[in-house]
Amino acid sequence: MQRLPGYTYGTPLVPQSPVSLREFEWMKATAMFTDEDVRYLRMSLAILADQTAEIVEKWYEFVGSQPQLIRYYSTPAGMPLQDYLARTFARFQQWIIDTAEANYDQDWLNYQYEIGLRHHHTKKNRTDAAPALPHIHYRYMVPLIYPIVATLKPFLARKGHSPEEVEKMWEAWLKAVLLSVALWSQPYVKPGEF
Amino acid sequence: MQRLPGYTYGTPLVPQSPVSLREFEWMKATAMFTDEDVRYLRMSLAILADQTAEIVEKWYEFVGSQPQLIRYYSTPAGMPLQDYLARTFARFQQWIIDTAEANYDQDWLNYQYEIGLRHHHTKKNRTDAAPALPHIHYRYMVPLIYPIVATLKPFLARKGHSPEEVEKMWEAWLKAVLLSVALWSQPYVKPGEF
Ligand code: HEM
Ligand code: HEM
Repeated sequence: MQRLPGYTYGTPLVPQSPVSLREFEWMKATAMFTDEDVRYLRMSLAILADQTAEIVEKWYEFVGSQPQLIRYYSTPAGMPLQDYLARTFARFQQWIIDTAEANYDQDWLNYQYEIGLRHHHTKKNRTDAAPALPHIHYRYMVPLIYPIVATLKPFLARKGHSPEEVEKMWEAWLKAVLLSVALWSQPYVKPGEF
Repeated sequence: MQRLPGYTYGTPLVPQSPVSLREFEWMKATAMFTDEDVRYLRMSLAILADQTAEIVEKWYEFVGSQPQLIRYYSTPAGMPLQDYLARTFARFQQWIIDTAEANYDQDWLNYQYEIGLRHHHTKKNRTDAAPALPHIHYRYMVPLIYPIVATLKPFLARKGHSPEEVEKMWEAWLKAVLLSVALWSQPYVKPGEF
């Protein structure tokens, strides 16, 4: 099978997460994330699978409209990098699938570490050899959760599911994104404080 | 006027936020937070003002049921500290009011810095001279956003507002809590990475 460029999920290229599966269980409990959420995420998979390009387009429209965000996809002089945008676009689509599959195993946990490193200066730009700003400032990570999940809602409602099901799927997504961003924070946080 | 013990909002005891109001405007834009959200937060003020004790009770029930959380209100040996819980209970109620008032000025911004420091080892326990664990680990901060906002929804719906209004108030709350937690992260993040 052809791999997406730069998508290393499940391969030996991904480092071991510094967070253990047991610690992650406590984080899940903190977000009230249960097996019911796993079921609703998986219900969303069939709905979202053929809409990922459209969803990521909406996210990119938003990011492109925000000067404080698009600069991270740009050179230090402020020139947006189309290749970089295109390559992360495809991995973003894949991330929707991976999140909806909701397999919270060691491979998933390790790849969350990798995604955190790719936002942080440790690994940003490396995957795509992009000459972009070297680090995404943490102050935007948590606020961006809102546009990410708000964009999803109409897509979840498009395939005739009941309002209750749409709501449950959306809440499962909100929890899943909170948990992912929490894991992605690890490289930013001072030693011992995470 | 009698001040709540340890509630120093707007006083010279609160340090200056390292984040400027201008930087905070960019964070707001990232969360799609607009003047409409300010209006809906203020609409929620009249609804929530006489329900704050009941809301904080629900939060405490949840935190009390979670061993990974209640330990931060406990001695290192695991004994929950009732005085500490009671004193933060009152400031939690006040926080609901302050968030619903939505006055995003320098005093508000400075107090967010103070709240961040009170979760971080810099200032945890100091305000109440509590012999509790000295630091709240960052890994729980972002996941706890879900229970905080999920608990609010039924309270927002209790005073006869339309489902659309309840939804809009709730979304404004979600954005406001994401923005607050983003600011509270600052003391945890490595220098230059926030
Ligand atoms: C809720 C917060 C966020 C989510 C859910 C998210 C999601 C993602 C995903 C899924 C990827 C691809 C991961 C991979 O390589 O497989 C990615 C990469 C990237 N994201 Fe984010 N992101 C968030 C916050 C941000 C923010 C605030 C920015 C600032 C503009 C940003 C800019 C980028 C960039 C530039 C890349 C490419 C990084 C690289 O060089 O490898 N992201 N993001
Ligand atoms: C969405 C995340 C959170 C919110 C909205 C929140 C809210 C608050 C508020 C409003 C206060 C009182 C601030 C003041 O002194 O005026 C507070 C203090 C406190 N919170 Fe949180 N909190 C969050 C995360 C957590 C977590 C994960 C824990 C872990 C159990 C925690 C434990 C505490 C403790 C122990 C205090 C007292 C700190 C001190 O010694 O001054 N909080 N929180």
